[in-house]
Amino acid sequence: MWIDALRAALPEEELVLSSDLTDGQAVDAVDVALVRGIDPGDLGRFRRLQLIHCLWAGVDRLIADPAVPTDVPLARTVDPAMADQMAATALAHVLDICLLHHDYREKQTRASWAPRHAKPMASKTVAILGFGSLGRRCAEYVAMTGATVIGLRSNRTTAADHAPWTTTVNLEDAVAVADVVVNLLPLTNETTGVLNTALFARFRQGAALINLGRGNHVVESDLLAALAEGKLRRVVLDVFAQEPLPEDHPYWRHPQVTVTPHVAAETDPTTAAIVIAANIRAFRAGRTDAITGLVDRARGY
Amino acid sequence: MWIDALRAALPEEELVLSSDLTDGQAVDAVDVALVRGIDPGDLGRFRRLQLIHCLWAGVDRLIADPAVPTDVPLARTVDPAMADQMAATALAHVLDICLLHHDYREKQTRASWAPRHAKPMASKTVAILGFGSLGRRCAEYVAMTGATVIGLRSNRTTAADHAPWTTTVNLEDAVAVADVVVNLLPLTNETTGVLNTALFARFRQGAALINLGRGNHVVESDLLAALAEGKLRRVVLDVFAQEPLPEDHPYWRHPQVTVTPHVAAETDPTTAAIVIAANIRAFRAGRTDAITGLVDRARGY
Repeated sequence: MWIDALRAALPEEELVLSSDLTDGQAVDAVDVALVRGIDPGDLGRFRRLQLIHCLWAGVDRLIADPAVPTDVPLARTVDPAMADQMAATALAHVLDICLLHHDYREKQTRASWAPRHAKPMASKTVAILGFGSLGRRCAEYVAMTGATVIGLRSNRTTAADHAPWTTTVNLEDAVAVADVVVNLLPLTNETTGVLNTALFARFRQGAALINLGRGNHVVESDLLAALAEGKLRRVVLDVFAQEPLPEDHPYWRHPQVTVTPHVAAETDPTTAAIVIAANIRAFRAGRTDAITGLVDRARGY
Repeated sequence: MWIDALRAALPEEELVLSSDLTDGQAVDAVDVALVRGIDPGDLGRFRRLQLIHCLWAGVDRLIADPAVPTDVPLARTVDPAMADQMAATALAHVLDICLLHHDYREKQTRASWAPRHAKPMASKTVAILGFGSLGRRCAEYVAMTGATVIGLRSNRTTAADHAPWTTTVNLEDAVAVADVVVNLLPLTNETTGVLNTALFARFRQGAALINLGRGNHVVESDLLAALAEGKLRRVVLDVFAQEPLPEDHPYWRHPQVTVTPHVAAETDPTTAAIVIAANIRAFRAGRTDAITGLVDRARGY
């Protein structure tokens, strides 16, 4: 699937599966490695590598993996089609929570007809943690409903870069005003375990959390405690420290937790291959500046 | 609540509760009646009535009610805030279906981690039956996700009136291309029972239906048969022939049916009162043409 999509998008390149490369001369001819986010393979043997391109959006595992050479530029895939899917997923969960659909599902199990007043979307505030290409697209989707959006941006960008959105670089400020917090942060040393008791204390009482980032953003025991205390009322989790989520994990059976199996935004080989092809061509033309998604390893994404 | 909102929006009018009007002269001074959609009250005793304004959007029950004088102009409430809520509700259900969230909920009950490929929203087609102010707002919301929208318009309007949307006056054509059909038709003699076996036969195999219109649009036994046959895969119902939906109704326990208790779009007295006030002022100024939502009784809405 991937190899077909990449070959279709890059007819001018010779694409070879790593497992098919046995000849030393052929190995030395490789200057670009295309790798999956969990599978760096045997990158060490490619001595002439000039670019590593991750087929996925998240590179946290590749950065952590000692098999990935640190002196070769690394790019991640920034695919607008993936941003659309992520935004659709985020909005689906935001609406499910704000319109009380989860509550009506529970009532349906008891054949209970009990209409409640849902406050209009225009009265809701949604914080989006991580305001890159995914976060901004989510903001557009959520704002269409009339909800107020506040974006947590990196401190390397300015509020003006994110016009017309209200943004902040202060995590506590972002979550403090939100009815729903959507996490889309990249996983870095700085953001590991950031969704913890200290941060939940800054949340509005009864707020909701939607984690579409990485499982390791969350301190699980802190999250369960915040639910038990009523600080968090609804939680949607698509990503987990351990995937697949173990069968006996308390998330599965928690009545206030929605579990989805890491499906918020799949990378679609067809659309991703177009983005990757454009990057490879920029690289061939010596225009590294035109590569989208070039990773700053110190920053972690 | 209603009376306060209406008084705030119409300080220049004398608003009296019908139950407080006992004096014959005071009764004869009434020229505008504001009525709820299920409660025409004792309209017959107001002999000088010049306008009946329904506080709600749907007037099917008022038109069917012999207590409502047929020679007095009737207006319904066309509130943009209600259109936003309806659109948010429709989009929430469309996304829930297309992103397979309903399926992951079922899997969660079994602690089953089983990611599936969801086709991108851009590959989906959503038919919106009823393309007035509610339907068009739904179209805007749904189209933001990349889905294709086809609107079923009244044969009194032209395609150009509904630009930029693709519309048709043919119900069979609209449903035949749709992955999801959203019903927002007004309930009239013509549309009663329109969601029946003959129409379901035109649906795509495995399509979904979201009924946010009226319960009497649906022939219930036909709907259950279409589910049993696999013609319909998912059904969301917010409205029912009998409300509250009786406890022993098969909808409640059907695994492919989502039941919500007529909450798709509440009329908000505060925003509705502003729309109604504008209509009353147009009426006082003799500008009947400027009244929004004036009902054509023959058409039924």
